Amino acid sequence: MEEIFQIQLNKENEMPLYHQLAEGIMTLISDGYLPANSKLPPIRKMAQHFGVNSVTIVNAYKYLEQKQMVYSRVGSGTFVSPLPVEHIPEPVANHNIRSFGGEISMENAINFSGTSLPHEMFPVDAFKKAFDEVLEREKGGAFSYMDGMGYEPLREQLCRYLESYGIKTSVENVQVLSGAQQGIDIISKVMVHYGDVVFVEKPTFYGASGAFLSRGAKLVEVPLERDGMDMTILEDYLKLYQPKFIYMMAYFQAPTGISYSMEKKRKLLELAEKYDTYIIEEDNFCDFHYGKEDIVPLKALDFKNRVIYIKSFSKILMPGLRIGLAVLPKKIHQAVMEAKYTTDISTSGFIQRALEYYLRENGWEEHAAAMRRYGSEKYRKTLSCARKYLGAAKYGLPNGGVSLWIRLPDGIGAEAFCSRMLEKNVIITPGSQFDISGEDDSHVRISFGNLSDDKIEVGLKRMGDTLKAMMEKVDISQ
Amino acid sequence: MEEIFQIQLNKENEMPLYHQLAEGIMTLISDGYLPANSKLPPIRKMAQHFGVNSVTIVNAYKYLEQKQMVYSRVGSGTFVSPLPVEHIPEPVANHNIRSFGGEISMENAINFSGTSLPHEMFPVDAFKKAFDEVLEREKGGAFSYMDGMGYEPLREQLCRYLESYGIKTSVENVQVLSGAQQGIDIISKVMVHYGDVVFVEKPTFYGASGAFLSRGAKLVEVPLERDGMDMTILEDYLKLYQPKFIYMMAYFQAPTGISYSMEKKRKLLELAEKYDTYIIEEDNFCDFHYGKEDIVPLKALDFKNRVIYIKSFSKILMPGLRIGLAVLPKKIHQAVMEAKYTTDISTSGFIQRALEYYLRENGWEEHAAAMRRYGSEKYRKTLSCARKYLGAAKYGLPNGGVSLWIRLPDGIGAEAFCSRMLEKNVIITPGSQFDISGEDDSHVRISFGNLSDDKIEVGLKRMGDTLKAMMEKVDISQ
Repeated sequence: MEEIFQIQLNKENEMPLYHQLAEGIMTLISDGYLPANSKLPPIRKMAQHFGVNSVTIVNAYKYLEQKQMVYSRVGSGTFVSPLPVEHIPEPVANHNIRSFGGEISMENAINFSGTSLPHEMFPVDAFKKAFDEVLEREKGGAFSYMDGMGYEPLREQLCRYLESYGIKTSVENVQVLSGAQQGIDIISKVMVHYGDVVFVEKPTFYGASGAFLSRGAKLVEVPLERDGMDMTILEDYLKLYQPKFIYMMAYFQAPTGISYSMEKKRKLLELAEKYDTYIIEEDNFCDFHYGKEDIVPLKALDFKNRVIYIKSFSKILMPGLRIGLAVLPKKIHQAVMEAKYTTDISTSGFIQRALEYYLRENGWEEHAAAMRRYGSEKYRKTLSCARKYLGAAKYGLPNGGVSLWIRLPDGIGAEAFCSRMLEKNVIITPGSQFDISGEDDSHVRISFGNLSDDKIEVGLKRMGDTLKAMMEKVDISQ
Repeated sequence: MEEIFQIQLNKENEMPLYHQLAEGIMTLISDGYLPANSKLPPIRKMAQHFGVNSVTIVNAYKYLEQKQMVYSRVGSGTFVSPLPVEHIPEPVANHNIRSFGGEISMENAINFSGTSLPHEMFPVDAFKKAFDEVLEREKGGAFSYMDGMGYEPLREQLCRYLESYGIKTSVENVQVLSGAQQGIDIISKVMVHYGDVVFVEKPTFYGASGAFLSRGAKLVEVPLERDGMDMTILEDYLKLYQPKFIYMMAYFQAPTGISYSMEKKRKLLELAEKYDTYIIEEDNFCDFHYGKEDIVPLKALDFKNRVIYIKSFSKILMPGLRIGLAVLPKKIHQAVMEAKYTTDISTSGFIQRALEYYLRENGWEEHAAAMRRYGSEKYRKTLSCARKYLGAAKYGLPNGGVSLWIRLPDGIGAEAFCSRMLEKNVIITPGSQFDISGEDDSHVRISFGNLSDDKIEVGLKRMGDTLKAMMEKVDISQ
C-alpha cells in the first residue's frame, strides 16, 4: 500500500486534509495507478498510514463517492469506479430532447433537426387497406403473442427486399425488430458487457453510442475520412484492443453523410476477419440514394459472416410502424432471441402482419422511388441554397440521405451559432450531439427532408446572414 | 501477495501444477479472499512466488479464464470475474423457448403454458373502428415520431384507469411503454448497474429476473409466504444489502398466484422508506380478480413515492398491442425518458392513438368485466377438475388470474412430471422456470385462460393419471 499512496498532506494548507487526500487519490486514479474496480485500503489502514483521524479518511472517501470517482459496497469496502465519469456523458439523445423539446414553438420554427419525410408522403391508404385485410382475415388472432423472431411470412418478404440490395439470406437469419434502435439495444445486450471495448466512427450516431454506453462499454472512436474510417488508425487500434464489434453506417452515415468506398468496405471486412471481431452495420438511408451507382451494403460483401446488419424502415416507410430488421450470424441468433424476449417479448404481430400484406400487395419499389425522388428534390434545393448563402462554410456532397454536415468557418462556434439560429426560429443540430465527448464545436447538421422549399430557402438565408454577422465580429476581434 | 496466495503445490501429484494452482485460486475466489474485479498478480511475480515456470502461471490463468472465473484485459492483466458464473443462469425465458418451442405440435397439444385469454375475446371490432378513425383523422401524422413519454391524450385516459384502482397520479408521471416487459427493461437500464443488488420474490417471474441479470445485477431472493414476502427475512436482508429496488407483484403473483395482505403491503412500504430503497410493482392481472374485496395496488398506498408501478395491457386487452404503462417518481422520469430513447425511440404512435380512441369511446369497464367473467369461469372449471384429479397435489386458491401454482406430492420431480405430460401432449410449465437457480423441482404452473372446458378436463385428468402412476413407483421404491 505504501508504494502507491505517496500523497503529501499539509496541515497548514487551508484546504481541509480530507480534501487534500481526496484530490491526491483522484490524481492516482486519473494517472492510472489505481485501476478500475480496485479496492481502496480500509479506513483504519489509511488512517494509520497518513497519521490522521479515521473521520478524515471517511470524509475523503465520501467526497470521492460524491464525485463518482469511487463506489462503495456495503460490507466490502470502497472501489474505484470503472469508467472515469467524464467518459460517460449523459445519453446524447437527451441533449436533443432538452434543447429542442418544449421551449420553442415548433409550429413557427423552421426545423432542420428532423430526419423523416413529411407524413403526407407516408403510404397511409395502402396501410389502411392492409390493416383492414389483416383484421378481416385473422380477427383477434392478429393480436396474439408472436414468435419472437417475427412473423415468418413477413421475414420472407424482408428477404426479398434484402436481395434487391445484394444481401442473400434466409428467413431463419432475419430477426424482426421494433425499429432499428431496438436492434442496437438488443445486440448491445447480447455482446457488450461492462468494460468491453466497442469501436465507433468519429463522429457517430448518439442513439447507438448511448446504447453502448448504457451497457458500460468503453468507446474507441475511429476518425472518418471522406470514404469511410481511416483504415490505418483502425488497424492500429485493432492491434491495441479487442473490440466486441465495430459500429458503422456504410451509406449516408449519421451525421456526416459519407458513404464508404468499395475499397474501404473490403478492407473493413478483411480487418474484422483478421482481428476476429464483428461489424454492426446500421442502415437507415440506403434507399435514399440520388446517384446512379449501385448500392452495395457492407453486408452484401460479407462472405465470412462478420456483419450484423440492422435496417430501419422508419425513413423509407414510416416511423410510427416501429419496425426494423436485423440479419444475424447464426452464432448469436439464439442469444438475440433471448434478449428480444427480455426487451419487449415481441414486436406487434398486428403491425407485422399489416406490413407483410403491404409488401406482398405493393412491393417496395414504387413507394421507395417516390420517397427517393422527393428526397433528391429537397437535396438539390438545399444544395442550391447552400451555395447561395453558406459560401463561407464547407460541406460534403453525400448525394443521398436527408442531411448536410456542415463545417463552420474558423472562429465560429457551433453551439453559439445554433443558439443564434434558435433566436431566429431556426432549429439546427449542433455537432456536439454526435461527439462522445461533446466537444465538437465546429460542425452543425441540417436535415431538410421534412421542409418545404420556401422554408429551406428562408432557413438557409438566415443561417448565411447569421454566419456573416458572426464572422464580422471574429474579424474585428482579430 | 504472499499473505493470500498460500496454495500448496505438489510436484509429485498427478494433477499438473497449473491445474493445482488454478484449483487453489478458484478456492480463494469462492471463499471470498479474492473479491470481484480484483487483479491477479502479474505472471512473473506469481512464478517467483511459487518457484515455477511462467508458463505454469499462464496455463493456470488460461484455465481459469476458460472456466470464466477470471477475465483478462489486454495490457492491464487478469481479473476476478464479477459474478461467479453459476450465479448467472442463461436468461430463464430461454428455457421456455427451448422447451416449448418447435418440437411439439402446438395444435394438438393441450397447452397450459399460455397466460393470454383466447383471441376470440379480444375487442377487435372496437379496435378496427379505432384504427379507421385515427387514420381518417390524422392520416400520415398518425405514423410520425412521437413524444417519448407517449401520446398525451392517451396518458390522460390511463390516469383515469389508474384512478379507478385508487392510484392518483397525473399525466406527467405516466410513461407509455411498448409492453410491461419493456418497462422492466428500461427501469433496469436506469437503476441497475453492474454488481448492484436487486431483491426479488422467490419464486419470481423470469422475464423480470432475466432483465435484471442482463444488467449484471445480483439477485437476492426473498421467500414468499401466503400473503406476500416474509417481512422478517426481508428486513434482515435490507440490513445486509442496499438493493436498488425490490421487485414484486401485489396481486396474483407470477408464478404463485398469491396476493399481498394489506398488512404486508403497508409493511413493505414502511421498509422501503426506512431502508431508502424503491419497489417495482408489476401488475399484469389486477383486473382479473374474482372475489368481491377491493383491489388495492401497492401504488395506491404509496404516499412517499417509493413505488414504480408497471402495468401490462397484454392480458386485459390484447398482447399484440404491445402497450403498457409506468407510473414513475419524478426523480427518475428524465432518466427513464433517455433510456426509452435508446431502447426503441418511442412506442408506435398509431397504436397509442388507437388505444386512446378506444378508451375514450368504450371505457374500460365493460370489456374488463367480460374478460374477468370469462377468466373466473375458467378458474372455477380448473378448480373443480383439480379437486377431482389432483387430490395428491397442493395448490393455493388465488381467486384471480389465470394460473394455478401446484406443489407436487413428495418424491415426484416436476421436470420428470412435465416431460411425462409432454409425451401425453399436455404442456405444463415446470417451477424451475421461476427459480433463479433453476433448482425448484417440486412445483408446476398450469395456466387455464386460453383453454376450453373440455381441454381443461382432459388435461387435468391426464395429469392426475400420470401423478398416480408416478406415485405408485415412488411407493414401490420406498
